[in-house]
Amino acid sequence: MPQLFTVITPKEAWLRLEPHLSPVARVETIATADALGRVLAEDIVASSDLPFFARSTMDGYAVRAEDTYGASESLPAYLKVTGEVMMGRPAGISLSPAEAALVHTGGMLPQNADAVVMIENTREVDASTIEVVRPVARGENVLQIGEEVARGEGVLSRGSLLRPQEIGGLLSLGVTKITVFQRVKVALISTGDELVPPEEEPKPGQIRNTNAYTLAGLASKAGAIPLRLGIVKDNHEALTAAAQRGMREADIVVISAGSSVSTRDMTADVINSLGPPGIMVHGVSLKPGKPTILAVVNGKPFFGLPGNPGSAMITFELFVTPCIYKMSGCKQPPRRFLTAKLTRNTPSAPGREDYVPVKLEEKEGQLYAEPVFGKSNVLFNLIRADGLAQVPLDRAGLAAGETVLVILL
Amino acid sequence: MPQLFTVITPKEAWLRLEPHLSPVARVETIATADALGRVLAEDIVASSDLPFFARSTMDGYAVRAEDTYGASESLPAYLKVTGEVMMGRPAGISLSPAEAALVHTGGMLPQNADAVVMIENTREVDASTIEVVRPVARGENVLQIGEEVARGEGVLSRGSLLRPQEIGGLLSLGVTKITVFQRVKVALISTGDELVPPEEEPKPGQIRNTNAYTLAGLASKAGAIPLRLGIVKDNHEALTAAAQRGMREADIVVISAGSSVSTRDMTADVINSLGPPGIMVHGVSLKPGKPTILAVVNGKPFFGLPGNPGSAMITFELFVTPCIYKMSGCKQPPRRFLTAKLTRNTPSAPGREDYVPVKLEEKEGQLYAEPVFGKSNVLFNLIRADGLAQVPLDRAGLAAGETVLVILL
Repeated sequence: MPQLFTVITPKEAWLRLEPHLSPVARVETIATADALGRVLAEDIVASSDLPFFARSTMDGYAVRAEDTYGASESLPAYLKVTGEVMMGRPAGISLSPAEAALVHTGGMLPQNADAVVMIENTREVDASTIEVVRPVARGENVLQIGEEVARGEGVLSRGSLLRPQEIGGLLSLGVTKITVFQRVKVALISTGDELVPPEEEPKPGQIRNTNAYTLAGLASKAGAIPLRLGIVKDNHEALTAAAQRGMREADIVVISAGSSVSTRDMTADVINSLGPPGIMVHGVSLKPGKPTILAVVNGKPFFGLPGNPGSAMITFELFVTPCIYKMSGCKQPPRRFLTAKLTRNTPSAPGREDYVPVKLEEKEGQLYAEPVFGKSNVLFNLIRADGLAQVPLDRAGLAAGETVLVILL
Repeated sequence: MPQLFTVITPKEAWLRLEPHLSPVARVETIATADALGRVLAEDIVASSDLPFFARSTMDGYAVRAEDTYGASESLPAYLKVTGEVMMGRPAGISLSPAEAALVHTGGMLPQNADAVVMIENTREVDASTIEVVRPVARGENVLQIGEEVARGEGVLSRGSLLRPQEIGGLLSLGVTKITVFQRVKVALISTGDELVPPEEEPKPGQIRNTNAYTLAGLASKAGAIPLRLGIVKDNHEALTAAAQRGMREADIVVISAGSSVSTRDMTADVINSLGPPGIMVHGVSLKPGKPTILAVVNGKPFFGLPGNPGSAMITFELFVTPCIYKMSGCKQPPRRFLTAKLTRNTPSAPGREDYVPVKLEEKEGQLYAEPVFGKSNVLFNLIRADGLAQVPLDRAGLAAGETVLVILL
């Protein structure tokens, strides 16, 4: 007999699983320069001011601001140029009243200088004299000591995802090695007596296994290491053995089950036999993806996803991807969604959250989402799509022109 | 004397460079399973139908549709169940009139069957008889031969970026090896007498080189291989030697020049001395990034970007990233922008395109972009930001509530 399952909303499903997820305990120390896409496992505090000397933000003359007060085109301030600040060197100059020094963008301010006059607002009178035709305020065109980052300031915290700018920011402070979370490992098991490996020629009744590869791709994109454990026949022992191997070798186990009721039931039985607490969610008010299973076995998240290629990808994106980020220690995963205006009426059923493949197009600064037609759940629909538009649970569909949330694919 | 340069719009700048860009000639054949993020260098045509046998899309009974016409709860159609289609096997059954066969989702349709009745619309009468209480149309709940992909159909074309779904789609057709474009190599040269490597303690007047690392990260994200050629002193010979090395070893050369006028001029001189046609664009109506140089030297694109960390990243994203995609052979780069509503008035100047770091936030299905305040061009502003909002050229700023285009960072 098919097992009965109670369908809950995608959000409720996630909220049941989430309290069981925590970052992997394994960390490693690596070169900051190699840490793109990794997640910090430590808090980083600035050990020095950035900049640690006052720097000019313009090409011009370093001055004492008060010497320029009241200066104008008709009544310029005359300043004596006492030297030039060389790039990469201490300024080596101290300004007395009515003195200035040539300084380049990024150059160090001389002693007693507190502002920089842009070169455009000066005129050379002779080799050692300039006219300043506009006053500058104290601090103008200067990046002060510690203005970007102050010594002792928390710069990045544990859980920060490292983008190019974070890598640069860490290196600017001399942080060349950092401790990051190790990558999360995701075991991928495909079940179904109809499946053959992609390199085999399927016989009548058989199809090639693709879920192991599409889901491996999604796992990689989320920063995890996919472990493809191959195709498992639809029998209890084989599936149990594969699931136990996944539990040993990985942090997360995903079974993409055959689509028929019987294989789905077997997946549920196997998961519940592996260890407590077992299945948290069996059935989600979601299209596609209703028969999705979310479970926890001995502290590790365990997913039973529908075998259909489209459903498997969509449910992976909705549940496994956020799980990977959570277990990677990542506090703010990269933005995966945007909003767009729907181009056509899109029917749904109230009480169910639908995900509809869409093409995105920008016209005059506005993004539009155009539903992709075709037999639902078919992998090639996702190839034609840029993202998945969400039809909310409480709506019986959306009308053309409405704003929709789109998950990028 | 500073060289004069004529400022043109970012779009004009790109249009001057673009005709000189073509995909790299080097291709390689790799396993499809390892091709995530790569770009196809060949057209792929389906060598077989997908599916190549008619499959059920539901759990139920395969039937001859005409046997169910007129069936209802009160007047069901009685069908004789002649067997069960096993998953992964030829159906091995042929239906005579008034016969049905049990079939699972994904199972092969028996001979003479042309539709599937969902199990929910049947009742078991005895071990070999069912009642059908709703009629099915011919083809209902069946994925026909070639319905997903027809034999001979073009599936993916040269220039397709391979996401998880494309990998799966290729494997579903048995395409286990493919020819892809080799990754584009980008040489990164940092100039400036003030720069020291990140592992060195800067002395007064010095700062750590970070552009080589932030730009390497952006290049990697765009699928290229970054080659960091190190820090070059501000002199003509040293810069020329580094630029020549970049020309030999890479497909694209990027110099992030010192920010002062003199080093910018030197960069321009060096580029023009390397070979024809030389500088295409010197100066873009852009903030930050006005002094950007776009050039072509002996067929290779060559960029002179401002040295300021924020400006270097922004101009790289605007010009070098699209150049990488073009040279990678990629016809449709991944979507890097979205639209959002601005939360505050953001001043600009007409005739100039501004890029303002913003935080993104979603409220009730709508994305909002909140400008990040702070000294412009500073790297840590980009760390606080999720993206860059574009203030268009023809506007003197944008008002709170207006829709802006945001490039994701």
